[in-house]
Amino acid sequence: LKQARSAIAARLADLEGFRLVEDPHAVLGRIGYATGLAEALDGAAYIQESTPERVEVKQEVYAELDRLAAPDAILASSTSGIPASAFTGHVAGRQRCLVAHPINPPFVTPLVELCPAPWTDPAVVDRTHDLMARVGQAPIRLNKEVQGFVANRMQAALIGAALRMVADGVASAADIDTAIKAGIGLRWSFMGPFETIDLNAPGGIADYLRRYGPLYQAIEGEHGPLEWTDEVLLRQVDDERRAVLPTERLGERSAWRDRRLMALAAQKRDAAANIGE
Amino acid sequence: LKQARSAIAARLADLEGFRLVEDPHAVLGRIGYATGLAEALDGAAYIQESTPERVEVKQEVYAELDRLAAPDAILASSTSGIPASAFTGHVAGRQRCLVAHPINPPFVTPLVELCPAPWTDPAVVDRTHDLMARVGQAPIRLNKEVQGFVANRMQAALIGAALRMVADGVASAADIDTAIKAGIGLRWSFMGPFETIDLNAPGGIADYLRRYGPLYQAIEGEHGPLEWTDEVLLRQVDDERRAVLPTERLGERSAWRDRRLMALAAQKRDAAANIGE
Repeated sequence: LKQARSAIAARLADLEGFRLVEDPHAVLGRIGYATGLAEALDGAAYIQESTPERVEVKQEVYAELDRLAAPDAILASSTSGIPASAFTGHVAGRQRCLVAHPINPPFVTPLVELCPAPWTDPAVVDRTHDLMARVGQAPIRLNKEVQGFVANRMQAALIGAALRMVADGVASAADIDTAIKAGIGLRWSFMGPFETIDLNAPGGIADYLRRYGPLYQAIEGEHGPLEWTDEVLLRQVDDERRAVLPTERLGERSAWRDRRLMALAAQKRDAAANIGE
Repeated sequence: LKQARSAIAARLADLEGFRLVEDPHAVLGRIGYATGLAEALDGAAYIQESTPERVEVKQEVYAELDRLAAPDAILASSTSGIPASAFTGHVAGRQRCLVAHPINPPFVTPLVELCPAPWTDPAVVDRTHDLMARVGQAPIRLNKEVQGFVANRMQAALIGAALRMVADGVASAADIDTAIKAGIGLRWSFMGPFETIDLNAPGGIADYLRRYGPLYQAIEGEHGPLEWTDEVLLRQVDDERRAVLPTERLGERSAWRDRRLMALAAQKRDAAANIGE
């Protein structure tokens, strides 16, 4: 808990540097630290559970949370890989349980994926959506439980296409990265893929898909099966990355990424105000 | 040509507003306008061909370009869909022809995909790479001709995953867009997919693929075939987009996108200087 306190204080100082938080001391003052579940849950209207990604751990935790939390409190999980139905079915108050999946690093990435179990009360999803929107996050709703939720399904597709090009010798990993960060990835920081293609044909998205759908379908048709954990492929991309960034500097580079994300968040706020959302 | 002049002047004024060009008048003064090919090619060391995307048009144009251009000038095509081998094989100087595919809008998107034909002289690719890097673009090299080059293969994969989720009723098109622009798309404006996953596991990219590869492989395995031009699907995404943005406002929204890209380019320049590239 002592480490948590200083880690939070350090993050808040960073955020203040980018004018992303107004009063770090006020924020720090609102955070409580507890060593027991009952103490942590006392007075809580919303609980964000972030225990290890193991279904049997979560099954136990949810039984306990449901027993100890106020009856109308929402129980939401940070899980990125386990559907709520896998660990809340046995819980008496299972209708108040759902997944609310944040994206790393959550203090600067607004997306939260709300994915209810089949038995989650729709009003609980609505209340979570409202709460997230009110605190400045960007909640989205899933209508059914799917592996990877929404964001990681798209990330999987993108990485899959990138890995196939390395495996087929089309381009280097560094050049494939450049194709995103100096090319099509730029607009994805403020527009989604649908809005992007909606603006790329005179008649909008349907016009675009009629024009370019056959090309994209042909590209997909060329995709052979990909062995995601193939050791030769792993070695190839790892060798290329390690030549650029030794393993011992991963942490330093992650801190760079977080600062770049903070600078981007500040820029997006200003651009939304000056140019439009 | 009159329209081109005023369009270029308007763009330069926009770019100046974002401090992305220092002296618009000097830039305007360097641009020549010609009504004939011989006049346009006079003294040119590099030719960026941007004729319509029809192979028979380009076949004719390249024969003419090769006849009229200085012997050591490079002949590069803006085509996004036709390999250089399809329109340069019959050209005497075919070794100096290649694709140099820019990304829309090219005045604010640095990526240029260099894709040689099998007979393109590697020194021509090197010279084009050097030239693009020197003028501030971000060139990448393809080792073989593939449909969609690099960027559109990844865009195809991402849009395919997005369309499948709409078709399967997982989420709305708007929420899928939010998953990118408020979530995983943020980092893609300054890091590629490989660097992204390299920072998302303690041991780097190989560690990441060993941990999450099986999940991503399972997600890909769930992908049924997608009919890209299915009218019901097109209608669904078009209805949703048109409710947000009527067709007659697409142009206005594209101008917004370009201004956001300019603001982002200015931010990226400053962040690279202050935080690191």
